[in-house]
Amino acid sequence: MQEPITAQFKPITVAIDAMGGDLAPQAVITGALDAARGLPDIQVVLVGDEAIVRPLMAQGNPPANLTIRHASQVIDMCDAPSAAIRQKRDSSIAVGMRMVRDGEAHAFVSAGNSGAMMAAATLVLKLQPGIDRPAIAAPFPTKTGYLVMLDAGATMDCKPSNLLQFAHLGNAYARAVMERPLPRIGLLSVGEEPTKGDELTKDTHALLKTSGLNFVGNVEPKEMARGEVDVVVCDGFVGNLMLKAGEAYGSMPMELIKTTLSQTLLRRLAAALLRPAFREVKKQFDYSQYGGALLLGVNGIVVIGHGRSTHFAIENAIRLGARAAAHGLVAPVTSNGAPTDSRGAES
Amino acid sequence: MQEPITAQFKPITVAIDAMGGDLAPQAVITGALDAARGLPDIQVVLVGDEAIVRPLMAQGNPPANLTIRHASQVIDMCDAPSAAIRQKRDSSIAVGMRMVRDGEAHAFVSAGNSGAMMAAATLVLKLQPGIDRPAIAAPFPTKTGYLVMLDAGATMDCKPSNLLQFAHLGNAYARAVMERPLPRIGLLSVGEEPTKGDELTKDTHALLKTSGLNFVGNVEPKEMARGEVDVVVCDGFVGNLMLKAGEAYGSMPMELIKTTLSQTLLRRLAAALLRPAFREVKKQFDYSQYGGALLLGVNGIVVIGHGRSTHFAIENAIRLGARAAAHGLVAPVTSNGAPTDSRGAES
Repeated sequence: MQEPITAQFKPITVAIDAMGGDLAPQAVITGALDAARGLPDIQVVLVGDEAIVRPLMAQGNPPANLTIRHASQVIDMCDAPSAAIRQKRDSSIAVGMRMVRDGEAHAFVSAGNSGAMMAAATLVLKLQPGIDRPAIAAPFPTKTGYLVMLDAGATMDCKPSNLLQFAHLGNAYARAVMERPLPRIGLLSVGEEPTKGDELTKDTHALLKTSGLNFVGNVEPKEMARGEVDVVVCDGFVGNLMLKAGEAYGSMPMELIKTTLSQTLLRRLAAALLRPAFREVKKQFDYSQYGGALLLGVNGIVVIGHGRSTHFAIENAIRLGARAAAHGLVAPVTSNGAPTDSRGAES
Repeated sequence: MQEPITAQFKPITVAIDAMGGDLAPQAVITGALDAARGLPDIQVVLVGDEAIVRPLMAQGNPPANLTIRHASQVIDMCDAPSAAIRQKRDSSIAVGMRMVRDGEAHAFVSAGNSGAMMAAATLVLKLQPGIDRPAIAAPFPTKTGYLVMLDAGATMDCKPSNLLQFAHLGNAYARAVMERPLPRIGLLSVGEEPTKGDELTKDTHALLKTSGLNFVGNVEPKEMARGEVDVVVCDGFVGNLMLKAGEAYGSMPMELIKTTLSQTLLRRLAAALLRPAFREVKKQFDYSQYGGALLLGVNGIVVIGHGRSTHFAIENAIRLGARAAAHGLVAPVTSNGAPTDSRGAES
């Protein structure tokens, strides 16, 4: 174990996996260049094969706050997560995660194999004290902005105690990253009454009522769409399906409108007039503006990007990691692995 | 017990709960009038308080194939389902369900208390042999038409054997009601690989592979939206959330577009030109065109309508019940309660 890091060490450093994502390395390098230029006070470190990364980075006229950390191996999308982490010890994901563990970076961002990211985070950073399973905290659009939903896919089978822990993690996230002083916590269910839902939900409802959190009760998707809560808690199977349903069905009316629109000349003209309005709406549903989702429950800040991340998404993922670090979302680890600050998981 | 009914008994008779739904009795009576006029070969029976129903029906100049069955009580939305069924033995829901049990109707339709409908169906009609839990089969829009998803909310906590039974019920539904000769059955999960999902999904995947059904594997919401399957199987908690997420998030871009559209005069003009296109799209997401969902797994045809059913939705719910009856979705019961025809649950 390295020396303990402190919350005060400067500048904030974000490591980014240069090799992860469908459009890597080019989109990652462009996104990192943009982030480094836009955030001159932070340090951005591209983690990947120097022979590949350096020439691409050089073309972009890199600023001084963008550097490279060499990693000779790559975990690709078809690698089995746990095995890959054990076998490819010099992969960009393993190296980036160790940088967080060892205090060389405040946050690690990757749009690569998300299973490998979760395995590496759990193995290298370890779970926070009092947390039995990790959770992915994903931004979810509402009519007025966004909320955070967790778990969005890290833990498929949950117990009520896991969901209670997720509520605490989401509470800390909403306070630090979304800057909501008293986050409203909702439990995803099929009706508002505490008796509605499956056994897991009903048992969790009882735990949340006495949790000391600002628990507003069960919420259905319509309350989510209206933005009536800041944090929505559910198991990783349901959360991942909700995210995917939002993507698939949220974009469907737009696509249908476009098909219908192209049917007559008059409508095509009208559609041209409306193009800016369509663009504004599409933006609200565009994952890339959020950058990525945070993996919560581990001793460090880990951002999981969308596999199809563009350079714009990468830039925003780096910004998300930097923001979480600046607000002290996860307390820095001490040499015995305990948080030095109570603000992280349970505040 | 009455005499056994046969599949040949004519005409097809659909009983409809005159007292159920937010807009009852007026919307129900109007919908029943429209259905009776549009389907002169079937018999429609309004079940409810004759003193209330007859004058409203008389105003509509009823055709001969629309009649009334008196029921003196009403189960309202705040009644506890099981208790209400036992206590209000002359409620419209109890009377309508007994009409199906006793061979006086092929199908019963209600937009009232759906919990009471499920309780009454299970108590009065009983579960089909080989079925341990009922399932709601709900139509779900796709880019090209619709698929059927089950369970959409009848059974919150499922075992793999329940989901296997739902797959057989959905298969029979798709063959009879959707007229797909070899329905493609998908299992809702968070990835295509059999190893993806929660324990319930992984265990169910193994059962479906050897079920003899046309099982195409796991499907995610994007494959549902593309219409790549005819039947999607999941537990009632997840299915109900998917339905509600589709409603909440499917309509969100439309609402956002409308808000954005009204911002400038030019856009308002363009929007006026596009109104018909918006209307076409909205129709695809409108539950009322489907009429309702079938409760499967019981010895009879039961249609559960949306609480907010309009007369148009009621008319379509009656059509759905008649279509299911005409295609022999559920085998008629014999006096010992066993199906006389293997086509129902397991074909």
